[in-house]
Amino acid sequence: MTIELERPKMRFRDTQIEMAHGAGGKASRRLVEGLIAPHFANPVLAEFADAARLPYGDGSLATTADGFVVKPLQFPGGSIGDLAVNGTLNDLAVSGAKPLALMATFILEAGLDVAVLERELAAMANAAQRIGVPIVGGDTKVVEHGMADGMYVSTFGVGSIDPRVRLDPASVRPGDRVLLSGPIGDHGITILLARGELDLEADLQSDTRCVWPFVSAAIERCAAGIRWMRDPTRGGVATALNELVRGQSYGVALSEDAIPVHDAVRGACELLGLDVLHIANEGQFLAVVSEDVADDALAAIRAVPGGEGAVCIGEIREKPPGQVVGVSGYGGMRAIDMLVGDPLPRIC
Amino acid sequence: MTIELERPKMRFRDTQIEMAHGAGGKASRRLVEGLIAPHFANPVLAEFADAARLPYGDGSLATTADGFVVKPLQFPGGSIGDLAVNGTLNDLAVSGAKPLALMATFILEAGLDVAVLERELAAMANAAQRIGVPIVGGDTKVVEHGMADGMYVSTFGVGSIDPRVRLDPASVRPGDRVLLSGPIGDHGITILLARGELDLEADLQSDTRCVWPFVSAAIERCAAGIRWMRDPTRGGVATALNELVRGQSYGVALSEDAIPVHDAVRGACELLGLDVLHIANEGQFLAVVSEDVADDALAAIRAVPGGEGAVCIGEIREKPPGQVVGVSGYGGMRAIDMLVGDPLPRIC
Repeated sequence: MTIELERPKMRFRDTQIEMAHGAGGKASRRLVEGLIAPHFANPVLAEFADAARLPYGDGSLATTADGFVVKPLQFPGGSIGDLAVNGTLNDLAVSGAKPLALMATFILEAGLDVAVLERELAAMANAAQRIGVPIVGGDTKVVEHGMADGMYVSTFGVGSIDPRVRLDPASVRPGDRVLLSGPIGDHGITILLARGELDLEADLQSDTRCVWPFVSAAIERCAAGIRWMRDPTRGGVATALNELVRGQSYGVALSEDAIPVHDAVRGACELLGLDVLHIANEGQFLAVVSEDVADDALAAIRAVPGGEGAVCIGEIREKPPGQVVGVSGYGGMRAIDMLVGDPLPRIC
Repeated sequence: MTIELERPKMRFRDTQIEMAHGAGGKASRRLVEGLIAPHFANPVLAEFADAARLPYGDGSLATTADGFVVKPLQFPGGSIGDLAVNGTLNDLAVSGAKPLALMATFILEAGLDVAVLERELAAMANAAQRIGVPIVGGDTKVVEHGMADGMYVSTFGVGSIDPRVRLDPASVRPGDRVLLSGPIGDHGITILLARGELDLEADLQSDTRCVWPFVSAAIERCAAGIRWMRDPTRGGVATALNELVRGQSYGVALSEDAIPVHDAVRGACELLGLDVLHIANEGQFLAVVSEDVADDALAAIRAVPGGEGAVCIGEIREKPPGQVVGVSGYGGMRAIDMLVGDPLPRIC
């Protein structure tokens, strides 16, 4: 099988912003790398990591910023407040950073029921307290009715990067293992069903949670063997892994049968013609670890309540470089690309 | 004259969010202190400072988060991108923090002209470069047409607090001087006129700029004498000073004639029945300094290009405690309260 190596060059040629630019796939990448990043050019930004790494004092800080516009505001398993806190904590976690503090800005729509706001404040406070991280400040703005679909939240997090962790896509080697913390697709499909636009029902809820306890356990057990981590949110596992291998001399071979997917998610994806590997998750993370620590890392993650579903889903291979391929149980292979378009707008 | 001391107790009783909750005055204070803060209760948040102070390593970090929903996006003297960067840098500056890095989240409306986004990215990059601060990351979300009035921006800043500075309203003493960096009201009135809803024109532009060069000069000259700083944005000088004196054993006497106001701003305020002390500024700061360093601090600020208009506008007095009073040239006095209601929605 030969697959042409995609050149990691991005130009932004669109003249209008479209929903797909916010979906986390190729269009988002073009927007960020082709338009935003060239304006803000600096070495830290150029890493395009989930969080920025800032040298400070004897160590390094991680900072991250996330906007949340999920629709509906509340859904089975969570709400915009949960997502805002967990999503930001997760960006710090997969940067190997212990969260220190969060801040939040609210853009509220005039006419918003205060009970809704209060519910989200409570959700944010609970999610932060679960991890013992204070919400230390923020800002509140109000726009006219109809101008913010209820509320939008932006969260900012700062963390302290564990000095034992050195994450770098360039350090990934053939033979390294790809680990996944649990079943995928729950969040995206839950949101889709919660909108009620489809005549589908399922006993399903968002996986929104903070992955720091799992990451922390893996760091304690085998920090030096962890090469890369990412939380596969918008664009899903496929997009996250494609971002890893892009421009690298290695690729990923995914054992598709090994990837845990709830039946309801698989069924909805089949019905709707969606690839579960493109569906957003809000409580899972991917890690590439060296072969020799893979079992230890998995054991450490599984020992944390909620981490029992962690599995090895693939490995790093020399060929094809810069590509993610799926391998089926019968040995068949398929190219797995980033998300294109926006099948699920406003998922987070 | 006796003025009853207002008790600093806040309860939030409204059932719907209204525009005034975002205006920076009393309603905003009730929302933040009566609803948001109780949920997020922690010692750092309880300070209600412009930026949160986080002990880290040998020093302290300052972090701040701000949402921007200004309408129109562009106005004489600046745009939402300028405000987003300068506003966040200013919150760090008045916390005595040298800015280290910024992040930004964009909530974009589908259909937004990419040229508008690009103009704002350039404005942000320029404003950040002027102060030598990198924009190290962020997030972009897209919502449906009509759901974000073009674009909203949230910015997050992290800075390193100068160890020589110890800002604390409790350290303010009668006899201390109140300094102001320049003319007030330019931003708020510029936005009001830019909306074109009033049949008024004036040769006026927003004062949006970063105040760190002025603050930095004052710190270098007399750090130990600086007791408190604030940038009087939403709610203006009156609200900022009321927030200072609230619950304290001292008050502020403002020499109203000493406060610099451009003629066009004064004229518009008179015509519209607005108090210029309630009008938002985006490039000024207030400082309370000990009497013995007041002249030095002013000289330091004035020596920086753009700081020539800095003046002493009043002093701290024992009576009436917890109040801001204005003193006219003829010795007349008036109580100056916080902003109530929202005469100027979406000013920043």
